[in-house]
Amino acid sequence: MRSEFEFINRVREQIAARRRDPRVRCGIGDDAAVIKHSSTHDLVISADLLVEDIDFRHAWISTKDGARALGHKALAVSLSDIAAMGARPRFSLLSIGVPANIWRTKFLDHFYEGFFRLADEHNIPLIGGDVSRTTDKIVIDSVAIGEVQRGRAVLRSGARAGDQIYVTGELGGAAAGLQLLESSSQEITKRKRDSRHQHTQHLLARQQRPTPRVACGLRLNARRLATAMIDISDGLSSDLAHLCQASGVGATIDARLLPIDHAMREIVETPLAESSVGSFEPLRLTLNGGEDYELLFTVRTSDAAKVPRRVAGVKVTRIGEMTDDSRKIMLYDGEIESVLSSSGFAHFKS
Amino acid sequence: MRSEFEFINRVREQIAARRRDPRVRCGIGDDAAVIKHSSTHDLVISADLLVEDIDFRHAWISTKDGARALGHKALAVSLSDIAAMGARPRFSLLSIGVPANIWRTKFLDHFYEGFFRLADEHNIPLIGGDVSRTTDKIVIDSVAIGEVQRGRAVLRSGARAGDQIYVTGELGGAAAGLQLLESSSQEITKRKRDSRHQHTQHLLARQQRPTPRVACGLRLNARRLATAMIDISDGLSSDLAHLCQASGVGATIDARLLPIDHAMREIVETPLAESSVGSFEPLRLTLNGGEDYELLFTVRTSDAAKVPRRVAGVKVTRIGEMTDDSRKIMLYDGEIESVLSSSGFAHFKS
Repeated sequence: MRSEFEFINRVREQIAARRRDPRVRCGIGDDAAVIKHSSTHDLVISADLLVEDIDFRHAWISTKDGARALGHKALAVSLSDIAAMGARPRFSLLSIGVPANIWRTKFLDHFYEGFFRLADEHNIPLIGGDVSRTTDKIVIDSVAIGEVQRGRAVLRSGARAGDQIYVTGELGGAAAGLQLLESSSQEITKRKRDSRHQHTQHLLARQQRPTPRVACGLRLNARRLATAMIDISDGLSSDLAHLCQASGVGATIDARLLPIDHAMREIVETPLAESSVGSFEPLRLTLNGGEDYELLFTVRTSDAAKVPRRVAGVKVTRIGEMTDDSRKIMLYDGEIESVLSSSGFAHFKS
Repeated sequence: MRSEFEFINRVREQIAARRRDPRVRCGIGDDAAVIKHSSTHDLVISADLLVEDIDFRHAWISTKDGARALGHKALAVSLSDIAAMGARPRFSLLSIGVPANIWRTKFLDHFYEGFFRLADEHNIPLIGGDVSRTTDKIVIDSVAIGEVQRGRAVLRSGARAGDQIYVTGELGGAAAGLQLLESSSQEITKRKRDSRHQHTQHLLARQQRPTPRVACGLRLNARRLATAMIDISDGLSSDLAHLCQASGVGATIDARLLPIDHAMREIVETPLAESSVGSFEPLRLTLNGGEDYELLFTVRTSDAAKVPRRVAGVKVTRIGEMTDDSRKIMLYDGEIESVLSSSGFAHFKS
């Protein structure tokens, strides 16, 4: 079956075959579209679908906190796209379809509480959207509109061979949190009684309440450091592949440099005796686990010394460099170099 | 159960409780949001969800033409919202979720064919969106972005008592088309053999391939005729109630003036002998049937003489006038005046 990315490429071809609108600086294929706005600014626009039983499960959102977390996440994933353009989010639209049995509950009230809490943090008004009934599943489309100085959106396509590759924060935690959620609730209860409960909480929060790196994206763009940027939503290996494809270059990642989530590492190093999910695979989750919503960006080698250790309070880690080995991504662990295939999240696997 | 409109009002209250963003001219509660754009223009933005088994059925889209029609309609409904603001549509985003069994078919190819055909007619580039898997139903969120001269978007809230009420085109046809689709396919086959086949085709097209009144909206706005405007998506009675509520006025409709769809009238006047759906109720469908995507607008009495019989080639009909009987809508048939309740389409009935 063709993959989601192949299909998007087909749509892109259809778009490319049409007359180019001079006001569209960047269309489908980046984290967000970029259109000319005024003499000083461009608009960036992103849309993200969240579908029940694909992106979340009914059990996770049946509590007040779970519904709030989904409201938070619906906005967070779109803000992350805006952040990956180095832009400032300004407005949001939210379309939500819910079945009648959910409509009768307090779900939507709690969902919007979570949504508005994050929106307020970023001073983003909700300006539109749609509300509909569905037959049985919840579906959400979150649209965020941001603003960036004219011509200054950071695209995926700006990386060159030799550029250094960085990521914000830590990776793999969201995927580990998903693994916890997908395990039984007894497992989570068991972990709650455990002294390392805060690690479990951290991993669940990484999955359910991701923090969009808006301030990081803005700071990196203001300092003109990032030559290319993408947010890690599908997984490092997949998203780096998207960046490589857009830039027409390859990459080498040094596995030893990867900022593996600290809580996941702790849990793996001292597993629970009776745990069924003690066996996280930290490297696999770090490379291929999605939904960390950290920023992956590249910097010219000549600027590398200017990259701070923390940006807007968030750790920044160099993990490798871009190569001229077109679109090929290598993983080096200090001894062996192997080809890294994109095994991140794709809705339709080929 | 609370209705969809009540819920939207709750969300509006939450938005109203927040600091007002001076760049948002009009938020949730009109056909589209209006935000300040440049020194000369505002942006208008609208989102519309289309959900399988709520807005369309699998059987209707399982053919090439059916899939194309859905692609057409997904864009048309959003363009209609932009038209109702008197704005020019400029960009579109499309998010679509499909189950794996649909992904394997040619559905998406045909869907995008229909989408792009209408997009090309209006010179609108597709600049973004999302593609996702769903477990079993198709869901679409269509976002359209338009442009209008600064401060010149036509809102729902500008009508005053005494204003004359007009509609473009004819009403009830889309609802009659829906009735045909909801009847058996034998019924449609039967009608195809009938000499009045073109009437059936017309009604099906009204339901499946609505024409957004973009040129009408632009023309009416350019002539500064419309004081308030809304597109008829939920049904005349519902959408007029929305306009009355936003404007804080009432209305009286003259039933004798209503532009009842000509094909529906013909079919009713000469029913098929063996037909199970011969019994359209033209007045009910005209008042309450949704999805005609015509424009309903109001004009100051002093300007009424300037309203042409046709706008951008589309018939315009005066159907009543606004009253100061706050938010009450009366229906007059020449003898009896009765209260018209909003019985149009609402996803969640109270």
